[in-house]
Amino acid sequence: MTHLLHEPHHDGSPTYLSDEAPALGWPVKVRLRTWSGDPVESVWIRTTYDAEPTFHACAVVERDEHATWWEGDLPVHNPVTHYRFLLADAAGDQRWLTAAGVVDHDGPDTFDFRVTVHEPAPDWGRDGVVYQVFPDRFARSAAAADRPTPDWAVPAEWDDEVVFEGSDPRTPLQYFGGDLDGVVEHLDHVAEAGATILYTTPVFPGESNHRYNASTFLRVDPLLGGDEAFARLSTAVHERGWRLLGDLTTNHTGDTHEWFARASSDPASPTRGWYYFNHDGSYECWMGHGTLPKLNLADASLRAAMVEGPDSVVARWLRPPYDVDGWRIDVANMTGRLGALDVNHDTARAVRRTAAAERADPLVIGEHNHDASGDLDGDGWHGTMNYSGFSWPVWSWLRDPASPARAFGRPLPVPVRPGPLVVQTLREWSARYGWLAAATSWNILGSHDSARIRTVTGSGPLHRVAAGLQFTLPGVPMIFAGDEIGLEGVLGEDSRRPMPWDRPETWDRATLTAYGALAAARRDHEALRRGGLRWAHVDDDALVFLREHPTGSVLVAARRAAGPAIDLPAGPLGLTDGSLLLTTADGRVGELKEKRGVVRLAAGGPGLSVWRV
Amino acid sequence: MTHLLHEPHHDGSPTYLSDEAPALGWPVKVRLRTWSGDPVESVWIRTTYDAEPTFHACAVVERDEHATWWEGDLPVHNPVTHYRFLLADAAGDQRWLTAAGVVDHDGPDTFDFRVTVHEPAPDWGRDGVVYQVFPDRFARSAAAADRPTPDWAVPAEWDDEVVFEGSDPRTPLQYFGGDLDGVVEHLDHVAEAGATILYTTPVFPGESNHRYNASTFLRVDPLLGGDEAFARLSTAVHERGWRLLGDLTTNHTGDTHEWFARASSDPASPTRGWYYFNHDGSYECWMGHGTLPKLNLADASLRAAMVEGPDSVVARWLRPPYDVDGWRIDVANMTGRLGALDVNHDTARAVRRTAAAERADPLVIGEHNHDASGDLDGDGWHGTMNYSGFSWPVWSWLRDPASPARAFGRPLPVPVRPGPLVVQTLREWSARYGWLAAATSWNILGSHDSARIRTVTGSGPLHRVAAGLQFTLPGVPMIFAGDEIGLEGVLGEDSRRPMPWDRPETWDRATLTAYGALAAARRDHEALRRGGLRWAHVDDDALVFLREHPTGSVLVAARRAAGPAIDLPAGPLGLTDGSLLLTTADGRVGELKEKRGVVRLAAGGPGLSVWRV
Repeated sequence: MTHLLHEPHHDGSPTYLSDEAPALGWPVKVRLRTWSGDPVESVWIRTTYDAEPTFHACAVVERDEHATWWEGDLPVHNPVTHYRFLLADAAGDQRWLTAAGVVDHDGPDTFDFRVTVHEPAPDWGRDGVVYQVFPDRFARSAAAADRPTPDWAVPAEWDDEVVFEGSDPRTPLQYFGGDLDGVVEHLDHVAEAGATILYTTPVFPGESNHRYNASTFLRVDPLLGGDEAFARLSTAVHERGWRLLGDLTTNHTGDTHEWFARASSDPASPTRGWYYFNHDGSYECWMGHGTLPKLNLADASLRAAMVEGPDSVVARWLRPPYDVDGWRIDVANMTGRLGALDVNHDTARAVRRTAAAERADPLVIGEHNHDASGDLDGDGWHGTMNYSGFSWPVWSWLRDPASPARAFGRPLPVPVRPGPLVVQTLREWSARYGWLAAATSWNILGSHDSARIRTVTGSGPLHRVAAGLQFTLPGVPMIFAGDEIGLEGVLGEDSRRPMPWDRPETWDRATLTAYGALAAARRDHEALRRGGLRWAHVDDDALVFLREHPTGSVLVAARRAAGPAIDLPAGPLGLTDGSLLLTTADGRVGELKEKRGVVRLAAGGPGLSVWRV
Repeated sequence: MTHLLHEPHHDGSPTYLSDEAPALGWPVKVRLRTWSGDPVESVWIRTTYDAEPTFHACAVVERDEHATWWEGDLPVHNPVTHYRFLLADAAGDQRWLTAAGVVDHDGPDTFDFRVTVHEPAPDWGRDGVVYQVFPDRFARSAAAADRPTPDWAVPAEWDDEVVFEGSDPRTPLQYFGGDLDGVVEHLDHVAEAGATILYTTPVFPGESNHRYNASTFLRVDPLLGGDEAFARLSTAVHERGWRLLGDLTTNHTGDTHEWFARASSDPASPTRGWYYFNHDGSYECWMGHGTLPKLNLADASLRAAMVEGPDSVVARWLRPPYDVDGWRIDVANMTGRLGALDVNHDTARAVRRTAAAERADPLVIGEHNHDASGDLDGDGWHGTMNYSGFSWPVWSWLRDPASPARAFGRPLPVPVRPGPLVVQTLREWSARYGWLAAATSWNILGSHDSARIRTVTGSGPLHRVAAGLQFTLPGVPMIFAGDEIGLEGVLGEDSRRPMPWDRPETWDRATLTAYGALAAARRDHEALRRGGLRWAHVDDDALVFLREHPTGSVLVAARRAAGPAIDLPAGPLGLTDGSLLLTTADGRVGELKEKRGVVRLAAGGPGLSVWRV
């Protein structure tokens, strides 16, 4: 009987690709594994060469009773080089291995593997764990009490309920008064959750609690403690050997921004062309919100002010004393795009180039809540916030059908899907983004813009399965502050609940412990950070996969419900018994035993377990 | 029981889309048909707006016992606007309808429908039938006998066997001496095959029989009769109300080209930068062939000489007395691409713009033997020579496994595939290209670069099934001269056999008659030119589809082997009995009878039949 593990396999990990970021013009070695029972007789790499398809034969380089290893040279002729494998057997049957799996038909290049010559993201940005802080809601330092409430704000006590409906005018104005020194005071908690990269949503002043409507990019909001507090936060983060990421909205400013004030009051102003004014004085803005005028990144002087060169906003905060290590770019998908105009790629390239001129190893992540495939794996964004390729498929596997969780921008809840459809979804998105960009993108279970994972799953055990997937599937985990203690929220604004520092009895300690253990496992096992991904078993309620790495592989089994034992063929798995690294299932999923060529994963669930194999 | 015809359906034809080329910023109406037995409760259009997903509700506008019609407004915000449909039922199940079919998982935008604001190809280029002539092998006028054989050539008599192996130096040099007045003399034959667009491979001088290695673009090869003969051909073609297409190699010239002679002999020459010379005097060329130096389309002066403005090669032949109606661009896939450099889109746009400045309704088709999805549906090539999305899938369905036919650039023969995989292939390619670009692309069964379809199928009946698909599936049929009388050839060079005008006894008259009848049906029935495409029945050996059009629809049934009767649900088909328009099956597939809600297609095959329904 054939099994998922009997399928031909290749991915972008070191087991299968000799160089993840080769020099242009130099070939890389690619390896393909086939099962010994597979009648494949010949294997070719098919690539395109300036868009012309060419075929390169692979040779058998290793063969044992379980597997045949094929190897070939892939010419890296273009900066992003596409390839797939053609497998033929003696009877003339031909299959293709694409990044989305094996197919028997002759479809387009859509899901081709890709290798790129552009510098990958820095190691810290690939191996770390991100912790997202929404400053107004994370923590107040003692100084916060002395700050006067600004005119625009609706003041709230820390334990007040969050107003979150879009129709309520208080939603963006409700002001809890968290500040940056408050963040500094709680870095030990961030450490307990296992994070090493602190990412704060915007710290520039803006007349809202979210601050995505900046009124300037030249200083940190005094309500957060100002420039000095930001410098203190940066120092504290770096003293721990961690990294700091800023959040920059390149797509728009607030209508209170100094640039916009000049532009709107004086049509002859030098900043007039930085926005899209119509003849009647109206202007383009983000999704119809007049408070968020859209920036015109085709304008050279705006580009110099915003994204290009040492005087740009992008550059200045990367320098001391702020020393931000990179940016999360807000609304990166729409940045530079308006109807027939599209300078999105140019903008992404400019941000990346500018950052690289300021720092040795900056990271640039683009927010894209949908399909970023055209924008990744080049010389622009290193990765994206992977809602489509991670959050929604994981939600669709784990959501409680009765959950009130709402996804932004969608008329319906994320649907409930069985395992095979979820895996197909994960595979297709990963294929479209390319191995490297997908593995550099953020595995998020939610953010300040979505429901909380806890509200999606409706229970601690399933929440911890979700967290397990976040830390064990390829990609960089990003924890939205509060997820690790089980905070809830039915949609983005509701998810921005203040951290209940003063109510420790409300914390879900089991989940916090699980996050810490998952982060430790990821730190200690290169397979979880850089390993390949082979699906070992998929059914409606169970996902089992292997993260292969030359330094040792890891097997992960996730169950969304109690289920029977699962048998895997031991040979293709390359294991006998595994040693359990961790489980979120309170001992209910623990055993992995080999017997006469079959590895049996004991009945159990829900839960997620990880074995060293 | 559900049936293919019960699937939700939408495509880019007038039944489902109110405007195939809307103005930017104006919404179009899109319609979706669902089966009355489908529990769908709500339908949304999901589109992207500067890469941000948005949802737009559809409403029921029509409902009868068989179908529900949903309609919604699609905002056309970007020049190429993506969309798909979300269908939900009362139980919360969610499906997507994409251009490649219905899916139950939440994958990337890959196969989204697309609508484009760019001017479509001219009507003549969409409604016509193309006839491809390879001048050296089509026909000799009386004047040909008097022309001296050029130095480079290996002279051949008209009935000599073609030398075709790439390893034989005579292959590109064997010279049969066909000329343009010879073409003029045989336009009646072209009419008999049903064509209305004459497309000749290059007519510029080049020291080879194929002339893709031009030595100038300023005059027509005297061996073909020179400029005057070309003007005579143009006049003769236009007098019939037909159109004439030229063939231009924008990717490279011959090494005997006047531009290259100057560039290689004098490094200071103004044309030096028109090629890619390396420091050591070597230069980039097409696929390693030193006789075909590659043009540098990033060079502004070359662009002016070649593709941009009234003095360009592109422009000059579109003017009287030559009056070419458009171009087939050779090696369009590689044009302007070299490693990290890519000015392909710019080049395509320039060709299209230049042509539009010269003529009211020019056509520009790009040769791409692989995946042109990135290059179509914008403001560049109107369509492509659709090898991947038409030729190879049709070959894979109809090929004789024992055929010696060889596909170019592939290490293995095109595989034999069953109907369902062939249809999946057709759907995916069409989806990737977009409805309009796919329907404007050329349905080719082969060309001067491939084996002949007759050699692929190995028999007349299957050859005629292939021709039937060529004329009845969306796309513009292109006949490679000689296909219509059953010429053979195992690979491109072998397929360039001279037309046997003097050996009429060798002609396959049944096939010629079938081509004429198919062309007439396509001319007389708008459904075959502009209709939608709904798959009605697919099994290993039978493909049945409906071409829907407001002026009347057409049902096509193709069988590659004898098979049993096929029952279709009459309601979703919207038909009772059909009236037979034509059949290639010599009466063996003829009956289409309705009885109590079932339409029965009689047993039969192989063959292809078309009914008016």
